[in-house]
Amino acid sequence: MNNILIEPQRELWQSLVTRPQVSTLAMEKLVSEILIDIRENGDAAISKYSLKFDSYETESFLVSEEDIDDAVNNIEPRLIDAILLAKNNIEKFHTAQVEKKIKKIETSSGVTCWRKNIAVENVGLYIPGGTAPLFSTLLMLGIPARLAGCKKIIVCTPPGKDGKINSTILFVAKLLGLKNLYRVGGAQAIAAMAYGTESIPKVDKIFGPGNNYVTCAKKLVSIEGTAIDMLAGPSELAVYADETSEPAFIAADLLSQAEHGIDSQVILVAKNIDIIENVVIEISIQMNALSRKKIINESLVHSRLILIEDEEKAFDFLNLYAPEHLIIASENAKKLSKKVSNAGSVFLGNYSSESSGDYASGPNHSLPTGGTANTFSGVSVDSFIKKITFQKISKKGIRNIGTSVEAMAEAEGLDAHKNAVSIRLKKLGV
Amino acid sequence: MNNILIEPQRELWQSLVTRPQVSTLAMEKLVSEILIDIRENGDAAISKYSLKFDSYETESFLVSEEDIDDAVNNIEPRLIDAILLAKNNIEKFHTAQVEKKIKKIETSSGVTCWRKNIAVENVGLYIPGGTAPLFSTLLMLGIPARLAGCKKIIVCTPPGKDGKINSTILFVAKLLGLKNLYRVGGAQAIAAMAYGTESIPKVDKIFGPGNNYVTCAKKLVSIEGTAIDMLAGPSELAVYADETSEPAFIAADLLSQAEHGIDSQVILVAKNIDIIENVVIEISIQMNALSRKKIINESLVHSRLILIEDEEKAFDFLNLYAPEHLIIASENAKKLSKKVSNAGSVFLGNYSSESSGDYASGPNHSLPTGGTANTFSGVSVDSFIKKITFQKISKKGIRNIGTSVEAMAEAEGLDAHKNAVSIRLKKLGV
Repeated sequence: MNNILIEPQRELWQSLVTRPQVSTLAMEKLVSEILIDIRENGDAAISKYSLKFDSYETESFLVSEEDIDDAVNNIEPRLIDAILLAKNNIEKFHTAQVEKKIKKIETSSGVTCWRKNIAVENVGLYIPGGTAPLFSTLLMLGIPARLAGCKKIIVCTPPGKDGKINSTILFVAKLLGLKNLYRVGGAQAIAAMAYGTESIPKVDKIFGPGNNYVTCAKKLVSIEGTAIDMLAGPSELAVYADETSEPAFIAADLLSQAEHGIDSQVILVAKNIDIIENVVIEISIQMNALSRKKIINESLVHSRLILIEDEEKAFDFLNLYAPEHLIIASENAKKLSKKVSNAGSVFLGNYSSESSGDYASGPNHSLPTGGTANTFSGVSVDSFIKKITFQKISKKGIRNIGTSVEAMAEAEGLDAHKNAVSIRLKKLGV
Repeated sequence: MNNILIEPQRELWQSLVTRPQVSTLAMEKLVSEILIDIRENGDAAISKYSLKFDSYETESFLVSEEDIDDAVNNIEPRLIDAILLAKNNIEKFHTAQVEKKIKKIETSSGVTCWRKNIAVENVGLYIPGGTAPLFSTLLMLGIPARLAGCKKIIVCTPPGKDGKINSTILFVAKLLGLKNLYRVGGAQAIAAMAYGTESIPKVDKIFGPGNNYVTCAKKLVSIEGTAIDMLAGPSELAVYADETSEPAFIAADLLSQAEHGIDSQVILVAKNIDIIENVVIEISIQMNALSRKKIINESLVHSRLILIEDEEKAFDFLNLYAPEHLIIASENAKKLSKKVSNAGSVFLGNYSSESSGDYASGPNHSLPTGGTANTFSGVSVDSFIKKITFQKISKKGIRNIGTSVEAMAEAEGLDAHKNAVSIRLKKLGV
């Protein structure tokens, strides 16, 4: 952690908000070959790649009900309780996003317009498995998909070499009432959901994080036209600290984000140099006890500890960075949070650890990375619906707005547009 | 209009919902050269392409206040009234989309979470100009951008060969208080907004329709990472008709959509063959009076008139087609509209002409095309904001959810995530 910067000039900021570059160019050729193969050869191609990349053979991609039921008996009661609490909180937070009431608006007399939320019909959730079975992500995607009312929800997740899916993932699937689980991972899973195969149905929209192959496949199918939630890049955390912060907590938060992968990035913006120094000491102490120390050491190479005394300036920097996660580690967090304009999710105060948000507090953990938080939102119920506009123009309505439409259509040189109104006005004797 | 299909089998439907293909592959090479040139050479490159493609020379891209003020005096009072009415209706409809109230949710005791809508800071609106100056699109994009509270809104639109911007576009800009207008069009305008040049600022998100070059440029910059509203394909209209429909109105609506371009597509799904026959007769009568007859004739080649007697089946087909615009030309439109699950915007009843929605009724006319209405929504205030989640976990809160986070982090093998909670619980003596 030698990347300490003291009051960097604004001219340097752009270089300081740059993320570690992930080049997918070499990967794109390989992944696009996989996509083509699966589009053309379906299940047979999936089997081939599953054996090649994930070293397992399977006769059926669909996970059986017995497999799911068996899993339920394998979960520790302590973990079950934890998952039930998380489910409850995630459901509470996301239920508030469901808009049930339709607001009808009469824009002109006789012209009634409204929007209606309608679920995306078929969605596919990709859940990383193997060595990192992210059952928390199944909660974060499955719950809003259910609340939105998606008709068909399928899940693809890679098994271990024994062909078995992680029990906790199966437990969560059962808990959420998800029955269509397929044991397939990687780019081949994304291709299967984008095109459909003999056993895996094509979906309208694909969700979920994954390794670089998965992300590359999502990028390619999205260019072709399949909707996706987002392209999840390496994880990021920025922490803002002042004299009311707890350096030991900040160190723990930075370490927790750094353990995701060697390309993760953590940034501390602090109001005084003491905090930075204390955080550095705490990092070196806490690190020793952590199992993923090797990953953390590599990812800390990209990290930055930045002194910016002026609060306004500090938040200007943080907004330029547009972090996936932002912790405002201060007793004044509430006031300071008003300065946030770009971030995926914000954690206020010394006791709001980012990892709490990853699992159990309620908000979604699928968030925009790489600076895209300046325009994109995290996954929510909104991600599983589309908003369709409706309008009903009565005879009175067309009398009221018809001549305006005629004038504007004429001015744009579109006389068939004008005619569509004129013919109606004529019928009404206008 | 010979494309009449009688009760087509479901197996054929997929082929019937296929859109006219627009291949951009050849274009992509040229457009990506333009993008690189503008990224490297800024204003000088824009000038070069403006002269080459749009035949005009200019010393300044920024439109002066005098130019804008002059324009205002050139607009016919009848058109001014029409635009004011449209502005009023569009504002009314979009104002209802602004969420002011923040719902705070206590998911567990001491864990408070909420979402806050924050405007995208810098947005760029592309407005087609030249022979088809779409001032209506400036209303449709400028109004929600204003309502969302975007700090900087710039507009790029190509001038005529005399270097002048269409007066009505300038009038609308002034009406909406938009001052940063640049006379530049085509792929070069998209590049300028994506990268920034000496005179045109880089934006966070680019909106607006355009010709194939514009769409191709938007596609390429979006792959690179600039946010865009959508890739607007050729315009589409599907009409559902039954015995209560007015064939003359339907013909006028189909013609109005067909005049957009030779790649536009119009589809009629009718409950009985008489309607189809009467619509065909009406089309041939009305067509003669229309100035864009040549375009209409070409675009009608892609059109289809389909007889499906069963209502349920008819809407299954329409939902598979997922049209940009859907008119339910029936006195039972309200009831039938409940069957709609995929569409951009729906028009109910015999007097709701699609062209009214293009200009003046209130809902947005920037809508998903090409079947993407199965997952995407049209432009709304939502398109100009992102939703940031916030959470405040108190000491009590972490006591309540901390052990759950620990258990889940442990099960996912992320012990630094666990540690970030444990260190806090320890401090609290838990």
